[in-house]
Amino acid sequence: MSKLLTGIGASSGIAIAKSFKIETPDLTVEKKNIENAEEEIAVFNKALEASIGELEVIREKTKQDLGEEHAEIFSAHILVLNDPELVDTIRQKVKDEKVNAAFALKEVADQFVSMFESMDNEYMKERAADIRDVSQRVLAHVLGKPIVSLAEINEEVVLIAEDLTPSETAQLNKKYVKGFVTDIGGRTSHSAIMARSMEIPAVVGTKSITDEAEKDIFVIVDGIDGKVILNPTDEELQQYRTKQEQYEEQKKEWAKLVNEPSSTMDGHQVELAANIGTPNDLDGVKNNGAEGVGLYRTEFLYMGRDELPNEEEQFQAYKKVVEEMNGKPVVIRTLDIGGDKELPYLDLPKEMNPFLGFRAIRLCLEKDDMFRTQLRALLRASAFGNLKIMFPMIATLDEFRQGKQMLEEERGALLEKGVDVSRDIEIGIMVEIPSTAVMAPQFAKEVDFFSIGTNDLIQYTMAADRMNEQVSYLYQPYNPAILRLVKMVIDASHQEGKWTGMCGEMAGDPIAIPLLLGLGLDEFSMSATSILPARSQLSKLTKEEAEKAVEKALQMNTAQEVKDYVEKTFLN
Amino acid sequence: MSKLLTGIGASSGIAIAKSFKIETPDLTVEKKNIENAEEEIAVFNKALEASIGELEVIREKTKQDLGEEHAEIFSAHILVLNDPELVDTIRQKVKDEKVNAAFALKEVADQFVSMFESMDNEYMKERAADIRDVSQRVLAHVLGKPIVSLAEINEEVVLIAEDLTPSETAQLNKKYVKGFVTDIGGRTSHSAIMARSMEIPAVVGTKSITDEAEKDIFVIVDGIDGKVILNPTDEELQQYRTKQEQYEEQKKEWAKLVNEPSSTMDGHQVELAANIGTPNDLDGVKNNGAEGVGLYRTEFLYMGRDELPNEEEQFQAYKKVVEEMNGKPVVIRTLDIGGDKELPYLDLPKEMNPFLGFRAIRLCLEKDDMFRTQLRALLRASAFGNLKIMFPMIATLDEFRQGKQMLEEERGALLEKGVDVSRDIEIGIMVEIPSTAVMAPQFAKEVDFFSIGTNDLIQYTMAADRMNEQVSYLYQPYNPAILRLVKMVIDASHQEGKWTGMCGEMAGDPIAIPLLLGLGLDEFSMSATSILPARSQLSKLTKEEAEKAVEKALQMNTAQEVKDYVEKTFLN
Repeated sequence: MSKLLTGIGASSGIAIAKSFKIETPDLTVEKKNIENAEEEIAVFNKALEASIGELEVIREKTKQDLGEEHAEIFSAHILVLNDPELVDTIRQKVKDEKVNAAFALKEVADQFVSMFESMDNEYMKERAADIRDVSQRVLAHVLGKPIVSLAEINEEVVLIAEDLTPSETAQLNKKYVKGFVTDIGGRTSHSAIMARSMEIPAVVGTKSITDEAEKDIFVIVDGIDGKVILNPTDEELQQYRTKQEQYEEQKKEWAKLVNEPSSTMDGHQVELAANIGTPNDLDGVKNNGAEGVGLYRTEFLYMGRDELPNEEEQFQAYKKVVEEMNGKPVVIRTLDIGGDKELPYLDLPKEMNPFLGFRAIRLCLEKDDMFRTQLRALLRASAFGNLKIMFPMIATLDEFRQGKQMLEEERGALLEKGVDVSRDIEIGIMVEIPSTAVMAPQFAKEVDFFSIGTNDLIQYTMAADRMNEQVSYLYQPYNPAILRLVKMVIDASHQEGKWTGMCGEMAGDPIAIPLLLGLGLDEFSMSATSILPARSQLSKLTKEEAEKAVEKALQMNTAQEVKDYVEKTFLN
Repeated sequence: MSKLLTGIGASSGIAIAKSFKIETPDLTVEKKNIENAEEEIAVFNKALEASIGELEVIREKTKQDLGEEHAEIFSAHILVLNDPELVDTIRQKVKDEKVNAAFALKEVADQFVSMFESMDNEYMKERAADIRDVSQRVLAHVLGKPIVSLAEINEEVVLIAEDLTPSETAQLNKKYVKGFVTDIGGRTSHSAIMARSMEIPAVVGTKSITDEAEKDIFVIVDGIDGKVILNPTDEELQQYRTKQEQYEEQKKEWAKLVNEPSSTMDGHQVELAANIGTPNDLDGVKNNGAEGVGLYRTEFLYMGRDELPNEEEQFQAYKKVVEEMNGKPVVIRTLDIGGDKELPYLDLPKEMNPFLGFRAIRLCLEKDDMFRTQLRALLRASAFGNLKIMFPMIATLDEFRQGKQMLEEERGALLEKGVDVSRDIEIGIMVEIPSTAVMAPQFAKEVDFFSIGTNDLIQYTMAADRMNEQVSYLYQPYNPAILRLVKMVIDASHQEGKWTGMCGEMAGDPIAIPLLLGLGLDEFSMSATSILPARSQLSKLTKEEAEKAVEKALQMNTAQEVKDYVEKTFLN
C-alpha cells in the first residue's frame, strides 16, 4: 500500500528514487581500561586521518559548487583537527591514564568545548561548536560508526531528514540527490531556498516524514503540489512519470523565453530580475534570462570568516557582478546582518527578539567604519556598470538620511582623490517594515526607488515569526492587509515618478504575480529559476484584467478568499 | 560638586532623600573541614529560620499591598525551605563529610538546581530558579552577609539599582522608598509601570547610576523631566523643593477634577478610563475619577501559581470588578500570555522571537478548554454589570470569527442551563498588529469596538523590540506612521457607528493627547494616576484646534518634527 504525505512544495519538479535517511549514529562512549596504549593511539590516529580526508573532500566540493566563502567553514574544521593542543592532549591522556581512545577523545573534547563556551564572546562560542562537530566525526570513526557523508552518496536517492543544515546542503550532489523531503521548514527556510537555487525538487514541513519513511523504499517527491508518496503503486509511478515528463516539457517551453522581453498580452512591460548571494550565482541569472539583478545580498561576503572583508575584496566582488551583467541594472543591498544572521567576529549581544533587534542598517549606522568601507567599495564599483545601492530595514526617514549622508561624504572624498565614481547612482530602500510602507509618500520624495522585501514585511505586519511553526499560519502573502501596504508603496513611488520592485519570495509566486501586476509593480526580483515560469505566466495575462482582479482582492476579508479568487480567475 | 544624570522620567514627582544601593553581597564559598558537625548544623538551622522569617514578612506585605496572587511566589519559596529532601540532605552532608554548612548548602543546592534545570520542562526550570533564589538567601545568612530585604528599609531613601525585579518592587514600602533610579529600562518596562501605579517618582534608563552614585549620598529624583542630581548643592535643593511643592499644588488642583466630566473647552466629551491588573487596583481607579476600566488585564489571575485558575475563581474576580464599577463600562481582555509573559505550568516551547510568537489569542484558540473556561466566567460575570470582552493580538478576521464563535457557543450553553448572562455584551478587539489596523474597515463591520494597544502596535510597526536598548530609539509613538494607522482605525470604526479606545501608554501621554483628540479617539485608557492630569489637559484644549494640529502632524516626516510641533503649539 502506498502512503501519501503532504507538505509545502519548496522547489518545483518531480523526483522518483529510493529513500536515503539521514540519521545520527549512537555515539555513546564507555570508559575502558586498556593495556596497550600504542594500539589505542593508532586507532585514534587513523580516525583522525579519515576525518580530515572527508572534510577535505567536502571542502573541495563546496568550493566548486558554491564558491570559496561557503567552503571556509570546512577549512576551519580541518584546522581544529590539526591543532596539537587538542590532539596531543588526547594521545597523552590515553597513554597516561591507560584509557580507551574514545573515552579520552570525548573527555578532552568536552573540556575544550565547555572552556570555549564559557567565554563571553560569540566568536569563541562558534569555535566550541566547531570542536563539537569535528570531534563527533572523529569519534564516529573511532567507534567504527562513521557519519555518512552526503557528498559520498553515489546512487540516485531522495533524502529524508528532519531538516538539512547549511553544511549538509552544501554537500549535496545534484547528480545523485534527486529530491529531498523534511519534517520541518517552510517556503522561505534555508533548505527550501537552497533547493530552488540548486533546482532539486523538494517538499518541506511534512511534520512526519522521518517517522513514516523506512530507508531504501521508493519515494515520489512532487515539489509542484507539495506531495510525497511512499511505496507508490505501479499506477502512481506511471502517473508521476507522466507528470515528470510534462514538467520537463514545460521547462523546455520556458527555455525558449530566455531572450524574450517580459510583457503582458496587452503589451505592458515589466522587469524580471534575479536575487543573488554571490558572483557565483551569475550563471543561473544569465541562463534564466534575468533582465537584471534585483537583489544582491552582500552578507555572504561577510560570513564564514574571522574578520570583516576589506574594501578591495568587496570592490572586486561588486565590480565582477556589475561587469558581468553588462549594463543591466544591479541592485546591491548593503549589509543586512543581525536577526537570524550572525557574524561571530562582531560579537553582538544576544537579543530576546532578534527579528525586532539591532540589525541591518541599524547596526551599520552605528558601526560607521564597517559601513563606510562597504560604501566606498560600492562607489568604486559603480564606475563599471549599472549599479544601484539599497539600504535594508529602513524604518524612519532619519535613518535613510543618515545613510545617504554617509554615502555622499564617501563619494565626495573619492572624487577628491580622483577616483572614478558614477555620478548618477540610484539610492533606494527596502520596504520591509510597516512604518515605511505607511510613510511611503514621504519617502518617495527622497529615495530613488523602493524594493519591497515581502519576507520581512509580512512577518512584521502580521507580527508572526515566519520561522516559528506555531504561527506560520499567519505568514499570509495574500492577506488584503499586505496587498494594501504594497499598493501604498507602488502608488507613492509612481506619484513621484519613481519605481518600485519586490525582492521577497512573493515576487515569483504564481498566485501573487497577477495581483502585483495589477498593482503596477515595476520590477519582480526572484530566484533565477522562477524567472522563466513568471515570464510565461505574464505573457498570458493582461494588465487590465489584473487591475480589475486586484481591486476586488483589496476589498476582501481574508487571505484565503484572495487565494481562491486568484486561482479560480487565473490559474485554471 | 553636584552631578546631573539624565534618563527617562518613568513616574512623575520629585523625591529628595539619601541613596540606598541594592547590591548583591559576595557569596563565595570555601570548603572547610570541621570538627564539630553539631555546631555547623546549628548555624545552618538558624540561617534557615531567619530566611523563612524574612520570606513570611515579605509575603504578608505583598499580600496586603498587591494582593494574594502577587504573594504566591513567596509561598513557593517558603515551601522550598521546608522541603526535607533538600534541608536534610544538607544536614546529612555536614555530618557525614565533616564539611562546613556553607559548602554543604552550596553543593546540595547546586545539585538540585542542575537536576531541575536539566529537565525539559518549563515548570521544573522555574523550580530550579526558586531553589537558587532561596538557597542564596540562606547562604547569605550562613555567611553572615544577609541579603538586605527591601521590605525592611525603615528610613526615607531613594533606591539605586541596575533594575528592579517584580519581587523587589513587590517589597517596596512607599512610606520609606521615596523614589528610585535604575540603569536600564524604559517608560513601558515593568519597574516603570509599577512606579506609576505606586505613585513613586522614578527615573529609569540612566545607564550609569549604579556606577555614579555612592551609598548614603543625597539624591534628587525628578521624575517629571527625567533628571537625577547626585550630591545637590544647597541652591539645587532649594530649587527642587520649590518644584516639589508646585507639583504637590498641581496634584491638589487635579484632585478637584475627580467628579468632573472629561470634556474639552468646546464641549467635546471623551471617556477617560483606567488600566488595571487586579481587583485590588480599583481603589486607585475610583480615587482618580476614572469613568470606566478600559483594560482589565486578566493575566495576573493566571500568574504566580501552579495551575490554571478555575471558572469559579475567575468569575468571582470579574464579578467583583464589574460590581464595584457600578454600571460604568469595564473592558476585560482575555488571556494575553506568551511573549515576555510566561506561565510555567503551560510548558510552552522556547521561541526564537517570543514577541512574534505563539501568544495571546493565538494560544487561546488552540488551547480551547482553557479559553472556554475564561469565556464562561466572563459571560456569567456579565450579568452583574457593564462588561465588555476584548480579544488581544488579533491579526486576521478569521481569528476574531473563531473567538467569537466559541463565545457564542458558550453563551448558548449557559443560557440553555438557565444561567443569567447579559444579552448585549460588546465584543471588541485590541488593535496592536499592523495588519489589523490596515484592515480596520473590514473589521469594523464585525466587531463592536476597537482598543488600540500602542505598546505592541508601535513595536511591530517599527519592527523594534521596545525592551531592547539598542533599538529603543525606534519606539516612536509620535511617528507619523503610527498616527496614520491610528487614524485608519478610528475612521473605520466611526464609519460603522462603532467606537475606538486606546489602552497603551500613549493614551496618557501629554504630547499624544492633543493628537489623539484631533483624530477623534473616543476612550483614553491609562494608568489611574494619569487620569486627572489628562482631564485637566483636555479641559484646556478645543477639538477644533486639535483636529487642525493632527492634520499637519500626519503630513510630517519624522517623530521629532511632530513632537516639537505639539510642544510648541500646546505645551508652552
